Amino acid sequence: MMDDSAVREERDSLGTLWVPKDAWYGVQTARAVANFPISGRRPDADFIIATVRIKLAAAIANHAAGWLDERPYTAIRAACERILAGEHQDQFVVDRFQAGAGTSHNMNANEVIANLANVSLGGRRGHYDPVNPNDHVNMGQSTNDVIPTAIRLTLLAKLPRLLAAVEGMAQAFSDLAEQERDTVKSGRTHLQDAVPTTLGAEFGAYAWTLRRVAAMLAAQKPYLCQTGLGGSAVGTGLNTAPGYRQRAAKALAELTGEPIEPAGNIIAQMQSMSDIAAFSGMLRTLTIEVTRISNDMRLLASGPRTGLAEITLPAVQPGSSIMPGKVNPVMFEMLNQVAYQVLGQDHAATQMAGAGQMELNVMMPAMGSALFDAMDWLGNAIEAATQKGLIGLSVDRERCRAYAHDSVGLATLLNRAIGYAQAAEIAKTSQQSGRPVRDIVVEKDLMRAEDFDRMVLEAAQSAP
Amino acid sequence: MMDDSAVREERDSLGTLWVPKDAWYGVQTARAVANFPISGRRPDADFIIATVRIKLAAAIANHAAGWLDERPYTAIRAACERILAGEHQDQFVVDRFQAGAGTSHNMNANEVIANLANVSLGGRRGHYDPVNPNDHVNMGQSTNDVIPTAIRLTLLAKLPRLLAAVEGMAQAFSDLAEQERDTVKSGRTHLQDAVPTTLGAEFGAYAWTLRRVAAMLAAQKPYLCQTGLGGSAVGTGLNTAPGYRQRAAKALAELTGEPIEPAGNIIAQMQSMSDIAAFSGMLRTLTIEVTRISNDMRLLASGPRTGLAEITLPAVQPGSSIMPGKVNPVMFEMLNQVAYQVLGQDHAATQMAGAGQMELNVMMPAMGSALFDAMDWLGNAIEAATQKGLIGLSVDRERCRAYAHDSVGLATLLNRAIGYAQAAEIAKTSQQSGRPVRDIVVEKDLMRAEDFDRMVLEAAQSAP
Amino acid sequence: MMDDSAVREERDSLGTLWVPKDAWYGVQTARAVANFPISGRRPDADFIIATVRIKLAAAIANHAAGWLDERPYTAIRAACERILAGEHQDQFVVDRFQAGAGTSHNMNANEVIANLANVSLGGRRGHYDPVNPNDHVNMGQSTNDVIPTAIRLTLLAKLPRLLAAVEGMAQAFSDLAEQERDTVKSGRTHLQDAVPTTLGAEFGAYAWTLRRVAAMLAAQKPYLCQTGLGGSAVGTGLNTAPGYRQRAAKALAELTGEPIEPAGNIIAQMQSMSDIAAFSGMLRTLTIEVTRISNDMRLLASGPRTGLAEITLPAVQPGSSIMPGKVNPVMFEMLNQVAYQVLGQDHAATQMAGAGQMELNVMMPAMGSALFDAMDWLGNAIEAATQKGLIGLSVDRERCRAYAHDSVGLATLLNRAIGYAQAAEIAKTSQQSGRPVRDIVVEKDLMRAEDFDRMVLEAAQSAP
Amino acid sequence: MMDDSAVREERDSLGTLWVPKDAWYGVQTARAVANFPISGRRPDADFIIATVRIKLAAAIANHAAGWLDERPYTAIRAACERILAGEHQDQFVVDRFQAGAGTSHNMNANEVIANLANVSLGGRRGHYDPVNPNDHVNMGQSTNDVIPTAIRLTLLAKLPRLLAAVEGMAQAFSDLAEQERDTVKSGRTHLQDAVPTTLGAEFGAYAWTLRRVAAMLAAQKPYLCQTGLGGSAVGTGLNTAPGYRQRAAKALAELTGEPIEPAGNIIAQMQSMSDIAAFSGMLRTLTIEVTRISNDMRLLASGPRTGLAEITLPAVQPGSSIMPGKVNPVMFEMLNQVAYQVLGQDHAATQMAGAGQMELNVMMPAMGSALFDAMDWLGNAIEAATQKGLIGLSVDRERCRAYAHDSVGLATLLNRAIGYAQAAEIAKTSQQSGRPVRDIVVEKDLMRAEDFDRMVLEAAQSAP
Repeated sequence: MMDDSAVREERDSLGTLWVPKDAWYGVQTARAVANFPISGRRPDADFIIATVRIKLAAAIANHAAGWLDERPYTAIRAACERILAGEHQDQFVVDRFQAGAGTSHNMNANEVIANLANVSLGGRRGHYDPVNPNDHVNMGQSTNDVIPTAIRLTLLAKLPRLLAAVEGMAQAFSDLAEQERDTVKSGRTHLQDAVPTTLGAEFGAYAWTLRRVAAMLAAQKPYLCQTGLGGSAVGTGLNTAPGYRQRAAKALAELTGEPIEPAGNIIAQMQSMSDIAAFSGMLRTLTIEVTRISNDMRLLASGPRTGLAEITLPAVQPGSSIMPGKVNPVMFEMLNQVAYQVLGQDHAATQMAGAGQMELNVMMPAMGSALFDAMDWLGNAIEAATQKGLIGLSVDRERCRAYAHDSVGLATLLNRAIGYAQAAEIAKTSQQSGRPVRDIVVEKDLMRAEDFDRMVLEAAQSAP
Repeated sequence: MMDDSAVREERDSLGTLWVPKDAWYGVQTARAVANFPISGRRPDADFIIATVRIKLAAAIANHAAGWLDERPYTAIRAACERILAGEHQDQFVVDRFQAGAGTSHNMNANEVIANLANVSLGGRRGHYDPVNPNDHVNMGQSTNDVIPTAIRLTLLAKLPRLLAAVEGMAQAFSDLAEQERDTVKSGRTHLQDAVPTTLGAEFGAYAWTLRRVAAMLAAQKPYLCQTGLGGSAVGTGLNTAPGYRQRAAKALAELTGEPIEPAGNIIAQMQSMSDIAAFSGMLRTLTIEVTRISNDMRLLASGPRTGLAEITLPAVQPGSSIMPGKVNPVMFEMLNQVAYQVLGQDHAATQMAGAGQMELNVMMPAMGSALFDAMDWLGNAIEAATQKGLIGLSVDRERCRAYAHDSVGLATLLNRAIGYAQAAEIAKTSQQSGRPVRDIVVEKDLMRAEDFDRMVLEAAQSAP
Repeated sequence: MMDDSAVREERDSLGTLWVPKDAWYGVQTARAVANFPISGRRPDADFIIATVRIKLAAAIANHAAGWLDERPYTAIRAACERILAGEHQDQFVVDRFQAGAGTSHNMNANEVIANLANVSLGGRRGHYDPVNPNDHVNMGQSTNDVIPTAIRLTLLAKLPRLLAAVEGMAQAFSDLAEQERDTVKSGRTHLQDAVPTTLGAEFGAYAWTLRRVAAMLAAQKPYLCQTGLGGSAVGTGLNTAPGYRQRAAKALAELTGEPIEPAGNIIAQMQSMSDIAAFSGMLRTLTIEVTRISNDMRLLASGPRTGLAEITLPAVQPGSSIMPGKVNPVMFEMLNQVAYQVLGQDHAATQMAGAGQMELNVMMPAMGSALFDAMDWLGNAIEAATQKGLIGLSVDRERCRAYAHDSVGLATLLNRAIGYAQAAEIAKTSQQSGRPVRDIVVEKDLMRAEDFDRMVLEAAQSAP
Repeated sequence: MMDDSAVREERDSLGTLWVPKDAWYGVQTARAVANFPISGRRPDADFIIATVRIKLAAAIANHAAGWLDERPYTAIRAACERILAGEHQDQFVVDRFQAGAGTSHNMNANEVIANLANVSLGGRRGHYDPVNPNDHVNMGQSTNDVIPTAIRLTLLAKLPRLLAAVEGMAQAFSDLAEQERDTVKSGRTHLQDAVPTTLGAEFGAYAWTLRRVAAMLAAQKPYLCQTGLGGSAVGTGLNTAPGYRQRAAKALAELTGEPIEPAGNIIAQMQSMSDIAAFSGMLRTLTIEVTRISNDMRLLASGPRTGLAEITLPAVQPGSSIMPGKVNPVMFEMLNQVAYQVLGQDHAATQMAGAGQMELNVMMPAMGSALFDAMDWLGNAIEAATQKGLIGLSVDRERCRAYAHDSVGLATLLNRAIGYAQAAEIAKTSQQSGRPVRDIVVEKDLMRAEDFDRMVLEAAQSAP
């Protein structure tokens, strides 16, 4: 039994419902809360901001077109600005898994803004007068153009943070690459002895690759800047004011600082999530590379006695509850785990992107949520791994050098002098006897020891 | 600057650290909190329970073996029981993405229990005497056997709730199948007109399939009941008391009500997540079917004027922010979205299951978390869709019947009488002219109208 | 321009078409060949057999019911038996990617059998008299019940071969486990030094796990033995003879040696691919484990100088085109690649399983093909890797032993004696100084060297 | 027992082996054939070309640097040119699943070219003099830089064909869009009645989206044009001639007509498959959109009596083996199936891209193969679906118009006039009574019938 004093009654086309008395949201939000007790997770914070920015941009455009009067406009604008400044974000309460297309979240925003506006104009919560959530706050809009636009804006908002995290890791690898440019070590291909390289070259390659995939991701931005806002219900722009589409895009560009503009085909941009799927694909590419590099780091740090042990990662916590003194590569293990979950988010989002039907993709709210989490978690994980796992690692240069000189792969250095077939015999002898290639080379009078050693060092340096 | 009065100093092998004064956890937990600011999501509630049950089972086994004295045993036991009764669950604070293998979560449990035990014995928080988190609470254990066991116990704990949700949906479909057993309608194959069936037959098939996949999922339970607990660090059982493995399994069986027993190969059960991957695969199978059925429901409910409109789903909220009076199949849309995310969780979990290396799979904490969420969300979504989307749907029997009699597929009823080739001509005539098959049949003197109609009704009933 | 003497003209409901004169297939097959020039890959050989077995079983059932006369029955039966004996399999010519549900492949079978039957009865190819492909060969059947049944039969046919390959690998690991039961080595967790184990224990765990996942896969068999044959177009059994369903299942049971029976719900078994999706999920579980074990093998074999080098795999071909003498773990690399592709096949098949709509899943032909390839390739790859990569590998026992005694993880052996915290100090000293744990233990008078060594050996053996 | 006269004996570092006497390949290829009896599928044709182009480019570069003498150079060049002209492609015989990194395929190319060259110089097959496969054909190369470069070149070669297929489909949709620009129909959101749009607008959106994703895919080309050729074994360029890298890239640019150039970081471009993973991600995006559009087409064509039936696809083959006269959307069903398999190929390729370790990714051959098939199959499927499924479809304009005027969504047209809440009441009345919105509007004196009808038509046209 609900305490009467704690609630107010509201009505929509389905009937009446109790709403918490001090809630800024209204009846439709309350229905959605009751309908969707799924994950217990509220909307992403950036997604709330993006939604409210769209409401504000729409109000600006409607006001400029003369469709929205000064008084409600001013009240709506002020309400939006308060939310954008950080107030009332706890009033966005609909579960991440909700009505298809995000109608509930959209109405949540409409109701909160309408109530804030009405109260500021002397009205009462739940009495949608003079500002109506549908007729005024949602004017010219539809969930179907608001939500995909809000998703795009949210991805754009999160992108700089993620890219900064990637650049942070790339820079850390660059710094290490510079520091270890002369650390000769054995390359490994097929995880088998190969010819010499340097640790600096390896770390430099990681840095280059990370920057490359970050650039690939950033290159998807222009697609996200094209919105379908103004298409309203099915892309035809029904019930939108003249000039609305352009004005709303311009207002969004100002609010976000991004070059937002109407897409070349509004109908397509509402029904198709291709740009979001493409973005997810690039996020996956980044994640794949982060996974690979993280795996390599854990392999290089394996040991201290029973592994490769070329590097030692900073100890950030005791490694084991049973094995004393154990220090594990926990930051990269965490990074690997996050990366796998991000691949899961991409998997979910991509399938949802493909599930559109006719004029709408109803999977949007969960698709957006999957990617929002992915970006936040991956960015946080990369930053933490950089700060606590990468910066401050130490290198066992002596061990690296020993591997380089011991590698059976050194027989390759003889290719040009004696040909592949004879060099293979020397490699075979080395492998079977356990003796270094150098000793066999010297013994066979093929080269002087010091010449061979010099060749090893030279071979480690990349050719021009 | 930390307020001195709010913290205490603790020490581990890496040095000292401040811990909130009133925290029941300790230094290693505090390190983990600082190390892993990733998702902000704390451990799953069932996972906490499972972990503490393992701690209790271990204490029981160690005590029985004479390795754990009465006094610390009693204190540890009491501490565990308080947590299991619901106290202090907010003391489990390490992020879902954390140290590989879950060392941090395991130490979190060890520390909370040790502090509770010590305080109950007159000691002070942070002074791990007489009960030490590693030596006493974690006695005979390793993260490496505790965490996979805790994951298995958590899956077992969540399973009945999920199965109940599926059975609830299956029963609702069964009830509808019974109710609509005589609702003749046109079957659709390739989304094209086919021969008659009944709505009851369709709903009955959904019920049968749901129960079948639920049975498949339940059939994975025995694998999960086999634990590697007692393997300690690498499966050899180092530092475990005689009989520990069996006693701990027995205690767990009593605590959980499940037939927990040591796996046939403890080393394998620690390094391999095959049973968990198999479970995830079955969860995926369930999800695939839920997706398919949910898609069908949305298709059957399409309309009211421009779709199939054989059924109408209960209206649970206004469907659109712009289109008045619209009622959307929001519960099944939500279910579809959850299902896609569950497929993402499966994707993540499976890849993590494959990422084990040598004696351990360090991806365990995130793998567990992915599946825990999947089970909770899917169960909640199925239940909500059943209660608000399925129960109470209405059927347009007239429309169903009209489709049945209008279908071009009815030409098939003539196969035995006139052969496929001639029946095809009739179908062609019907399709091109827009006239019902019946009219053409009658016109060509092949059958009387009432005989044809009777055939349609009979054809809709499944043959024995 | 077609050479008239090389073709014959046939007709179907869409009109006439040229068919190669000596083709046993007919017009509908020819249409499909022209319609689907996609992969150039013909049907799987086992799938052809399965389809023809169904045709034979249907003929037996129809004949027994008195619906199919003796003369066409005998001719159809003989035609089927010739194909099953290996004749005319090159007459199955429709691309793997074809008409939804596999209508084209089904008609290909119907036409080849009809032509063979008619010619044996004195008729001519392309003149479907007295045996008509639709009315007689396809009697009581529909693509919609033939193809899913054929897929199930094909999976059942391939299963023993795959299981035998897995058992072959498991046995090879068992043999190695027995052989290396006393080969003490260091365990590795987090790829870091851990406590001692044996190579035999590791290989034994692989064997156990492989057998376990094989058993999980085999446990899916009963579901596949339940067929929807007899449902005809939409599961209602329209146009099927009394007793047809049971008789056809019995005939199939005899033809295949498997306990084929009608499913509990025929409609469900036609529209739902849940058993096939579940099977795919178990195939994935197997693949995940094969991937993990293969990765481990490549890691253990890494070296010879710059890796772990605990084992050496047999050299089956020169490893590198540039690095002489290089021997790479090519068989396990091949196995890993196949495993990834199998995961791709599972991914494809599962999504297709979820794409059913109403009474039918039109994705069946490609779904079946994806799994057929997966099973063949995985079986072949496991067998090749076993024969050429596993059998005949050599172990560097001395190196294993050295790792065991050198591991910093040995400090764990002191836990019970001096507690985790003090043991951690010793581990730290060992790690920082590079000195073995044993030396520090002896120096500190904690234990005699020989006692410590004995402890290491004992610790490597699994506790009871 | 091998017939002596049919074979020749060859030797490599592992010993001797029989090779078919008339084979142009040699001992290492023969070993690989024996080692890898996995799929029975030979290399992709474009991949053979790409590999041989690299061999030729390397020879050009080595000759220019003075490392390769005129005589062997001329012979190698001629051998390559013969293969590029189409000869001897059946000599590339190693299974798609083979040695990690593709050593076997690379050696297959080296051996065929060496034998062709030697025979042209008067030598004998199997006697690698004066041209040695490793020392001369493979000069300056390693499998590790040849294979990733060959994969990139192959993707580049296939790209124009795929893009042309997509453009073909886009153009067909554009043509239809133009043709149906005035075909008013009801939009559908959530598969429910929505406001009016036109079929032309829908088809135009498909065209726009297809071109957009094609452009996204094409935008990945520059990354693929950057090669790691010249890195040799580990990226350092060991054993490469001065200027080799630049000269080889220039020669490849001429041979392929693409702007091939050395990557900014050769080591990275050898170890990382990020550009290939990104390309795969874009291929996935394309596939996702093709899936969605294909699903829509099957939905629009559903019927003829029991579905939406707004369009009728061309009949290309009888649709059913049991249901006479049935015409199914087989071309789009085929397209959907191919699309799912392409998603599987992407899944496989992406995981392989992430499986690189240190200086090499040994999964390359299967990763390449997965994408080669994906591109071929998808291109073929899109083209076939366009030619046989799209071009020639017919539209039921009357039915489209009827849906538009009957849609309950028309109440939205009243929003501006009477507000959302009152419009909702009208929609409710329409839905419950089954009467058109127009009639209620007229009855309530809100508007004249003809004005309402005009509004419907206007609403269907997209706003500026």
